[in-house]
Amino acid sequence: MPYMFISTQIRLENGPTNVGDEYSDPAVMNYLGARKTTMLGNNFSEYHVDDPPRMVLDKLEKIGFRVLTMTGVGQTLVWCLHKEIE
Amino acid sequence: MPYMFISTQIRLENGPTNVGDEYSDPAVMNYLGARKTTMLGNNFSEYHVDDPPRMVLDKLEKIGFRVLTMTGVGQTLVWCLHKEIE
Amino acid sequence: MPYMFISTQIRLENGPTNVGDEYSDPAVMNYLGARKTTMLGNNFSEYHVDDPPRMVLDKLEKIGFRVLTMTGVGQTLVWCLHKEIE
Amino acid sequence: MPYMFISTQIRLENGPTNVGDEYSDPAVMNYLGARKTTMLGNNFSEYHVDDPPRMVLDKLEKIGFRVLTMTGVGQTLVWCLHKEIE
Amino acid sequence: MPYMFISTQIRLENGPTNVGDEYSDPAVMNYLGARKTTMLGNNFSEYHVDDPPRMVLDKLEKIGFRVLTMTGVGQTLVWCLHKEIE
Repeated sequence: MPYMFISTQIRLENGPTNVGDEYSDPAVMNYLGARKTTMLGNNFSEYHVDDPPRMVLDKLEKIGFRVLTMTGVGQTLVWCLHKEIE
Repeated sequence: MPYMFISTQIRLENGPTNVGDEYSDPAVMNYLGARKTTMLGNNFSEYHVDDPPRMVLDKLEKIGFRVLTMTGVGQTLVWCLHKEIE
Repeated sequence: MPYMFISTQIRLENGPTNVGDEYSDPAVMNYLGARKTTMLGNNFSEYHVDDPPRMVLDKLEKIGFRVLTMTGVGQTLVWCLHKEIE
Repeated sequence: MPYMFISTQIRLENGPTNVGDEYSDPAVMNYLGARKTTMLGNNFSEYHVDDPPRMVLDKLEKIGFRVLTMTGVGQTLVWCLHKEIE
Repeated sequence: MPYMFISTQIRLENGPTNVGDEYSDPAVMNYLGARKTTMLGNNFSEYHVDDPPRMVLDKLEKIGFRVLTMTGVGQTLVWCLHKEIE
């Protein structure tokens, strides 16, 4: 699981922040304190936390994930992170 | 074929993920388990998989492709990957 | 606090520039001369300065933050900065 | 001419790909097999090829240009390439 | 002044290119041959040149500025450049 995405909608100063999908590493999701939910109308689940994205990035840096790039699509901001495999 | 694009529409947490065009390397398309299709009204074909983009990136890292950059255009998210030529 | 975001709306040639959220490092906010405000209708506060984003980036470089990436989302331009932890 | 832009509209899986402007290096345009055209209503000319952008990037890598970054603006995808000056 | 922005509207193949704000380094603005103007309705001034952005990047590389990242916001393309401080 070297790649990871986090995303937030509309405002970057507050949460919630989406931190994972159905197949995300449970150990990382647990470390972030993320909750697994299925949004109404979606046929897939996702993980989110209440922290704003900046705090999530700071936490992920401590376990080796670094921001590669960030982009906006529609009203969503997405960060793509990567962890070097030892 | 040092460059590669993958893309997904609207949501990044699930597939399908577009992984190639008509001229993509068949060995890489086969490795990803991609299917070649021609969308109604298009005069070109493309390759896609059911995996979400994060899992495709993880698989591509194993054969040497790394994310250079990512962007959103309209409702589509695009990743540009690169593999160093030996 | 290795990551930091700054953002501006519509025009990049002038301020104000948003430089922090509720949990931002007060020492960095003070260094930038930022004011904490809560926008009408928001349930969170943010920090901003009157300087244009270019001047904020120049100031932040002096204390070790470097631009990783920049993106547009809606009418907002966002810069993602990072400071190496010693 | 260390910098170069290429761009494509709407779909990234097929061409044409815009590869240059009026002042682009004729040797590089010739290497790519690009045609110079002036679009109706424009007061400037541009170069394009029928290849999809991925194939253009692969060709440009062979003569020293590498992708620095990519972005979407409106319905257009733009790649910014750079060649180190010896 | 380690950071610099340049931007252009709608088309990347021709100018004008916006190269600075009110507080930009006059020596760099002079080197680029930029004119300072105040657009109708704006309470701030900006610098622009007639060259397309690619030619501006080529000129700026000669005095040490390199492209860090590029993004689209609305109909505007923005490049963020950086010069290492000796």
